[in-house]
Amino acid sequence: MDELNPPERLLLGAGPSNVHPRVVKALLSPLVGHLDPYFIEIMDETKKLLAKAFKTKNEFSLPISGTGTAAMEAAICNLVQEGDEVIIGVNGFFAQRMSEMVRRWGGKTLEIKKRWGDVTTKEEVENLFKNSNANLVALVQGETSTGALQPLQDIAKIARAYDALVLVDTVTSFTGVDLDIDGWGIDVCYSSPQKCLNAPPGASPITVGDRALNRIRNRRKPVQSLYFDFTLIERYWSERRMYHHTAPIMNVYALREALMIALEEGLDNRIAKYKRNSEALMAGVEAAGLTMNTEHQYTLPSLNAVRVPEGVDADKVKNIFLDRFNTEIGAGLGELKGQVWRVGLMGLNSSERNVLFFLEALEVSLRKEGHSLKPGVAANAAVDYYDAHQPIN
Amino acid sequence: MDELNPPERLLLGAGPSNVHPRVVKALLSPLVGHLDPYFIEIMDETKKLLAKAFKTKNEFSLPISGTGTAAMEAAICNLVQEGDEVIIGVNGFFAQRMSEMVRRWGGKTLEIKKRWGDVTTKEEVENLFKNSNANLVALVQGETSTGALQPLQDIAKIARAYDALVLVDTVTSFTGVDLDIDGWGIDVCYSSPQKCLNAPPGASPITVGDRALNRIRNRRKPVQSLYFDFTLIERYWSERRMYHHTAPIMNVYALREALMIALEEGLDNRIAKYKRNSEALMAGVEAAGLTMNTEHQYTLPSLNAVRVPEGVDADKVKNIFLDRFNTEIGAGLGELKGQVWRVGLMGLNSSERNVLFFLEALEVSLRKEGHSLKPGVAANAAVDYYDAHQPIN
Repeated sequence: MDELNPPERLLLGAGPSNVHPRVVKALLSPLVGHLDPYFIEIMDETKKLLAKAFKTKNEFSLPISGTGTAAMEAAICNLVQEGDEVIIGVNGFFAQRMSEMVRRWGGKTLEIKKRWGDVTTKEEVENLFKNSNANLVALVQGETSTGALQPLQDIAKIARAYDALVLVDTVTSFTGVDLDIDGWGIDVCYSSPQKCLNAPPGASPITVGDRALNRIRNRRKPVQSLYFDFTLIERYWSERRMYHHTAPIMNVYALREALMIALEEGLDNRIAKYKRNSEALMAGVEAAGLTMNTEHQYTLPSLNAVRVPEGVDADKVKNIFLDRFNTEIGAGLGELKGQVWRVGLMGLNSSERNVLFFLEALEVSLRKEGHSLKPGVAANAAVDYYDAHQPIN
Repeated sequence: MDELNPPERLLLGAGPSNVHPRVVKALLSPLVGHLDPYFIEIMDETKKLLAKAFKTKNEFSLPISGTGTAAMEAAICNLVQEGDEVIIGVNGFFAQRMSEMVRRWGGKTLEIKKRWGDVTTKEEVENLFKNSNANLVALVQGETSTGALQPLQDIAKIARAYDALVLVDTVTSFTGVDLDIDGWGIDVCYSSPQKCLNAPPGASPITVGDRALNRIRNRRKPVQSLYFDFTLIERYWSERRMYHHTAPIMNVYALREALMIALEEGLDNRIAKYKRNSEALMAGVEAAGLTMNTEHQYTLPSLNAVRVPEGVDADKVKNIFLDRFNTEIGAGLGELKGQVWRVGLMGLNSSERNVLFFLEALEVSLRKEGHSLKPGVAANAAVDYYDAHQPIN
């Protein structure tokens, strides 16, 4: 077998994004034990950084030892008990997955089904609360499969009025759009490091508030999963330092560095940058006569889903990006298979340079597939947008 | 917060071990997507390397996306169904944990309880098979908490005679002692990368044979965990390449490199090296008047548990190693808290240099704690052992 020698892709897909050079440097750091005094400092610092990025006072702000789906499962298997009714906005692959998990763990799902790309409204949620005993509402803030950005604030308020908990998936949106765990009243929220944070996958941020922890501590039966049992994970990540499992130490190093980078840049600056680049991309896409999969106001700036024009083979264009431009863009997933390209602008990949490159490469790829766009129109529209919308800071 | 700058520890504890320089280099490789054609090659190669190291033809030989405890849970939650009777040799922390997991997942445990440091005999297992409907026997080959090496061959034969499956934990023993999945008839076996393989934790090897997969495919109810569901994981790691979750790509790079290193050195050479260094360490320890926690023939060469002499504070010695020698050794866990030091000689850490260093440092540390050994006796006995037992190849 050959020496490891991966191609230097530009990762503009649905994630992972490219690893930040400072994070690569962190991966070179010597490993220490998972109970080493130095690692315990790193754990505490990582918790503080996570709490700051989540805007919360939750002590339980830490990385789950697995990928984003592990964090989703950890949240659901701890929160849901046999027979619990759970309201879920189902408008994409990951929302659907949450729903399936709730059922696997014994819950009863009350689904609000929408077109993949639309969002759940507070009226729809309130209506279900009125007509059920739901004690949890689960939503995906940034739906990786559709590019939709779900508003959360009003829904969280409604849930609180019904004494229910709020669970939010921010895998693709964390540090890319506004999020205020304590201010909005979100009880449990998880994410992933390989999206807006530009770190490799493997240790996934989660924050769990006291209302949720109280419910978990008072479960009728302990959670079946020992690996994901929050009451055990808490003992390792708090003063007790009780061994639970060997933390993925290197991934924690990487996550800490990635969070430092995000917080040094400033969350507000970062969010404004994402918005500007996403809007420039949309301006270009639409000037060229293509359409987005989402309304502008509900477009997730870190993941832009562009509709595939009639008669174009989505996979062929995706492969031109890969083979000719050494660039990954995302294919459609589930119901949107063949219907969208998913363009990730995450972390350091959210840049004017990448937006212009993507629009030019899309134009060329479509032409190669026999679908002509007017040359230069898309990129020029994006440049016009940039010129008219200077960065604020 | 400061820049990440961990101390350069020598990791002679219960794991993690130091990362191999070639593995560090692998971590520098650019990330590609989890469905990138290049990553798919890496996945296939990793499967082949794992199958070779496990000595199996099992197609399902792959890394679970989590740490060793995740692999343990994945195995148990897939194999065990409500009401199943499971025979478990309980002679240490990790065996105890397996037993707890079996109960959490609805199984009934038939425990063979032994002193922590002793092993389970085939007679004990056969006796339980005769008097139960057990359809699974679970054993820990290398018990990280006690330093015991469990013989497997005869027990696997008995299990097969009773049409039961065999599950084995090789977290600390994989590539460090003899293991022959197909030859011995082991159905499911998992491990960890941060022990004998010198890779960072986060992606944990597992192999699952056809008899086990058939049982899993014919479960009365699908496994509750979606993240660990082998029928879904299989679809991503086989020709279908159906998205399941974002693999911890960087950890897979690291694991592949670590497996290449082990197989290039040769499993037999590696196993002989471990045995020689462990026996030299025991010769030194016993010449100095100390004792091991295990009989020689049942001592795990990758993890050597030395009994703490009467009147010595185990933690103080451990801290002298850390503070004075920048070296981690393991403390006792669970029932053996305060009673043993666990000395890991894993991968590149299994060397004459480390054995002699450990013995000298132990002598100095004990002296500082007021427990005098005759100077130089331990290290000299180890050198005598080395001189009398030259490497074979």
